[in-house]
Amino acid sequence: MATLNQQLKVKAWPQGLPGPEHFELVEAPMPTPGDAQVLIRNLWLSIDPYYRHSLGPRFVGTTFCRPGDVMMGVTLGEVVESRDPAIPVGRHVVTLVGGMQTYTALSARDVRLIPADIFGPGKLPLSTALGVAGIPGLTAYSALMVHAKTSPGETFVVSSAGGCVGATAGQLARILGLRAVGIAGSKEKVDWVVHKAGFDACVSYKSPTFAADLAAACPNGIDVNMEHVGGEVLATVLPLMTLNSRIVISGLIDQYNRDVAPPGPNWGIIVQRQMTVSGLRVFKHFDLFPHFERLMAEKIGSQNFAYEEDIKDGLESAPMSLANVLTGANFGKSLIRVAADA
Amino acid sequence: MATLNQQLKVKAWPQGLPGPEHFELVEAPMPTPGDAQVLIRNLWLSIDPYYRHSLGPRFVGTTFCRPGDVMMGVTLGEVVESRDPAIPVGRHVVTLVGGMQTYTALSARDVRLIPADIFGPGKLPLSTALGVAGIPGLTAYSALMVHAKTSPGETFVVSSAGGCVGATAGQLARILGLRAVGIAGSKEKVDWVVHKAGFDACVSYKSPTFAADLAAACPNGIDVNMEHVGGEVLATVLPLMTLNSRIVISGLIDQYNRDVAPPGPNWGIIVQRQMTVSGLRVFKHFDLFPHFERLMAEKIGSQNFAYEEDIKDGLESAPMSLANVLTGANFGKSLIRVAADA
Repeated sequence: MATLNQQLKVKAWPQGLPGPEHFELVEAPMPTPGDAQVLIRNLWLSIDPYYRHSLGPRFVGTTFCRPGDVMMGVTLGEVVESRDPAIPVGRHVVTLVGGMQTYTALSARDVRLIPADIFGPGKLPLSTALGVAGIPGLTAYSALMVHAKTSPGETFVVSSAGGCVGATAGQLARILGLRAVGIAGSKEKVDWVVHKAGFDACVSYKSPTFAADLAAACPNGIDVNMEHVGGEVLATVLPLMTLNSRIVISGLIDQYNRDVAPPGPNWGIIVQRQMTVSGLRVFKHFDLFPHFERLMAEKIGSQNFAYEEDIKDGLESAPMSLANVLTGANFGKSLIRVAADA
Repeated sequence: MATLNQQLKVKAWPQGLPGPEHFELVEAPMPTPGDAQVLIRNLWLSIDPYYRHSLGPRFVGTTFCRPGDVMMGVTLGEVVESRDPAIPVGRHVVTLVGGMQTYTALSARDVRLIPADIFGPGKLPLSTALGVAGIPGLTAYSALMVHAKTSPGETFVVSSAGGCVGATAGQLARILGLRAVGIAGSKEKVDWVVHKAGFDACVSYKSPTFAADLAAACPNGIDVNMEHVGGEVLATVLPLMTLNSRIVISGLIDQYNRDVAPPGPNWGIIVQRQMTVSGLRVFKHFDLFPHFERLMAEKIGSQNFAYEEDIKDGLESAPMSLANVLTGANFGKSLIRVAADA
């Protein structure tokens, strides 16, 4: 067994894109597992775009790797020493806090045993437990199974379709009976998405005809969008979204390397807070009227509900009242008494 | 009965705020109901901010009242002539297409009979069928009952809290066991919201200490926001939103009178398309792993699922791989083989 732990440490926070100059490789003493801890020998390290959030204040992340810290990383490793009987030596685990190092000592509750009947020789390769059958794959799966509320026949569009999450999402969407359309960059990726991953179509966001290409690939509009990019890609997707459509924001890579937030209320906070934002137009809820009217009759009738009315007489008062509700100069529900006997 | 129909017509589309100069009052012949139509004598006209969308291309509406058209308006009227037995003479109806006029002839399917056991003398005033117990009230009700998925004890914040929708929403939120906090403009409205409508708190967006006031009124953050304003109000709300919080966008009055859309991907389209946008972080879906892994084992095992891996060797390759996933230069899931024997 090794006597030193190789670690990749953060040297400085980047402006813009990170590169080798922002990290340094060091050797540290081997970690020793404490009570209820395990010692992991890292075999595979996943590299994901969201790591950028940890390298200085951005618009999504809130936990940081500071200069001098071991760089964060999701790893798959082998248990080489265990002080917790639930995590036996020799088993493989995935951990979010393995970090970019060869060894790591962790609490058993910070690792997840990967099922030996699914991963290993003659089964799925171990590396897929960090990719298509791991957290990136689960991201695609939960977008479709939990967030998107899909129906067969709907059109699903995913950006970064050549990436692990996007490619998995499109293939899962087709299993669910959706039409899958990808957005990718290079011709190599676009071809792979259609011919290998079997999407119904894929368009390049780098094409000068991107907007027309996407519209042509989605003749009935977009019912579900899984968004990884933001910026111009999201701006091109938005006008094609259908009524009652859903967007699952999984990433906004367009802004990960910006030092200044893009203008406008940032959709990034929707990811950061795992929010749900819905647009309400009341016209589709008229079926609720009977129950609602009865509730109001009871509450207002028993003097338990306050309301004010701002009443003006005659149609000729309507333009001024409209201006008032737009500036907030009214007080209470703005009404025009059209008939003098009303 | 009158022999002429008074109508308020659009004279010109406004830039910015509409005013009396954009409309003209005219007299037209009385309309005559056709087959399956009813003749309505309009008693009350509702004035609502969203009417602005019909006065020229904006960022939400898509149907317009052009110069020369009768201005749109939601009305409550009395049936004075009926060629449909389901809508008897003498009953009261609400219609979205009554328009700003004293009489209107409409298909029976375009009017809604308001329940005679709820509205009328000794019951709720007729005018409330256009306000607190009408479409604005139902907007508040459906935001809370359908969109917001509230739980007792949560904090609910509504802007335009002195308006009919906002005031109704806050009072309904309290009935559901939520803490209700309003945002309003004038001191008069703020006082009314707290002392008459019984909100737990209300703050003024016109105060120089608005952001601090709102934070102080929401010591546990904001779990549900019903948004009517957008702009600086939404920007002040956003940082206070809690994990798994919900925003119901009912209006974005801040942009109704702008001639140029605010920068950034416009949240207005969320309303226009009645979309649901959700932020996904996979970490809360780890309970799905067992089912997902089994699905992947089956699909990949039977060669029915495509995936690619972009593998580099050694921790020292990680910075370049991170840069590559941020620019899209990778192809397939980016992994570092940390251990040579992995």
